Amino acid sequence: MNKKNDAQRARACRDHMYSADLASQSLGIEVTVDEPGRASATMTITESMLNGQRLCHGGFIFALADSAFAFACNGYDDVTVAGGATIDFLRPGRLGDELTATAVERQRGRRNGVYDVAVQNQDGKDVALFRGKSVATGQRMLGNDA
Amino acid sequence: MNKKNDAQRARACRDHMYSADLASQSLGIEVTVDEPGRASATMTITESMLNGQRLCHGGFIFALADSAFAFACNGYDDVTVAGGATIDFLRPGRLGDELTATAVERQRGRRNGVYDVAVQNQDGKDVALFRGKSVATGQRMLGNDA
Amino acid sequence: MNKKNDAQRARACRDHMYSADLASQSLGIEVTVDEPGRASATMTITESMLNGQRLCHGGFIFALADSAFAFACNGYDDVTVAGGATIDFLRPGRLGDELTATAVERQRGRRNGVYDVAVQNQDGKDVALFRGKSVATGQRMLGNDA
Amino acid sequence: MNKKNDAQRARACRDHMYSADLASQSLGIEVTVDEPGRASATMTITESMLNGQRLCHGGFIFALADSAFAFACNGYDDVTVAGGATIDFLRPGRLGDELTATAVERQRGRRNGVYDVAVQNQDGKDVALFRGKSVATGQRMLGNDA
Repeated sequence: MNKKNDAQRARACRDHMYSADLASQSLGIEVTVDEPGRASATMTITESMLNGQRLCHGGFIFALADSAFAFACNGYDDVTVAGGATIDFLRPGRLGDELTATAVERQRGRRNGVYDVAVQNQDGKDVALFRGKSVATGQRMLGNDA
Repeated sequence: MNKKNDAQRARACRDHMYSADLASQSLGIEVTVDEPGRASATMTITESMLNGQRLCHGGFIFALADSAFAFACNGYDDVTVAGGATIDFLRPGRLGDELTATAVERQRGRRNGVYDVAVQNQDGKDVALFRGKSVATGQRMLGNDA
Repeated sequence: MNKKNDAQRARACRDHMYSADLASQSLGIEVTVDEPGRASATMTITESMLNGQRLCHGGFIFALADSAFAFACNGYDDVTVAGGATIDFLRPGRLGDELTATAVERQRGRRNGVYDVAVQNQDGKDVALFRGKSVATGQRMLGNDA
Repeated sequence: MNKKNDAQRARACRDHMYSADLASQSLGIEVTVDEPGRASATMTITESMLNGQRLCHGGFIFALADSAFAFACNGYDDVTVAGGATIDFLRPGRLGDELTATAVERQRGRRNGVYDVAVQNQDGKDVALFRGKSVATGQRMLGNDA
């Protein structure tokens, strides 16, 4: 399959997944996919994401990174799930901050993959570093739609 | 300080934090603290937490574990933040599942600590294993309320 | 297979692996296996394991934990490799310390598993916490020897 | 301090540490530092590093990455120790392989830092990805030598 077709398939996977991804939608996460193995996702920190210290609860920063990761590793029409992840919190997120998570593939084997995600704020400062481990299920995602 | 006072202080920290923790509240997370260094948190998986595969988005499972971790490490009246965490996803969470995260302290130094959190479903099966690294800020939480 | 046979097979795997494990042998690591999914390993810190601060280089503490992990996940006669691991260093190791790593299985699926290893010194104090992720290859270890 | 002086100081820290680092020396690890926050380290896999599957024991791959990390975060004349690390094993190391670990700083705060290390073999293929968390002690390394 050539590069253009790869990109088309990756975007088709993104559309297919996103339309059913109530979690990303409910958090206001927007996802962009232009090629398999990469994705970016954005989210604005709202009042209901703040913890007791008026900082963004780590769960929402993780969720943004996890969405970018999921869309990056699901661009090959092979349903892939998260086996685990690590996250390091470098700077707090504050009310109104617009966060962008950028996921890149570091390794993709037959079954397991490793993806790095950096989460930055609107000033381009690192908020978190995330590393996700993917597990491919071997199932097709697009089916007859492909 | 004796054991009874430790427990009182830990519960006071819990009440103080929870009342301002819009994130945990908005996710329907309930938190129980009976002693410093330990906490448990429960959450029911709702429709808006489901990803494109109709499974609970990892971000919400992480958020539940992260809340249990935050309340466990903040029971000493010393404001403590998350430096980072690792999570392994063992079983999917499904719509309506009631998840319980139990956090225990593995190590607490002057500034850094390590906490293990297990997330289980209503059948007592492990859904995720989380390990959080805490960083104490040296600031008091309760102030004059203590 | 009953419990007694499980234990026999686990010990046979231990013997088979250890005899070829030049790395563990060269580090003076001793390994005990009594049942599948669990193992313990001991090592004494020698002069050649010290870093520039006269503390045990983290690589050797990791190696000890990694050996305990490897023997714990290889007790089922299914060749299993490490996919990754996390380690937290809690206390330094010093010249002459006798370290013991105890590995327990937290999860074992068809292909992936999670193992927790605690490394303690001769005073029973935690030196490091390690969590390993195993990947089963599907190959038998014992072959005709079983 | 200007860039040239930064580099001189980083190399002085490297020399000071390496001369006392029996662990890195005993493993045949060579370390290069040209600026603070970065380091590279090389090691050849020897017979005594092989595990029962004739592959390089994970402990030695970790040790190489950990050395690169330690020299990267100790280039500021502020004694810094490892708080923890994660490693993902992507490809096995084999007898005679020459591994190179390249460490880069992702974040350096007043006390905590995050460093990424990639370990590659002589063909430029990724063998492991390592992420280390540093903790600064606030002590000077070079003393009057500086």
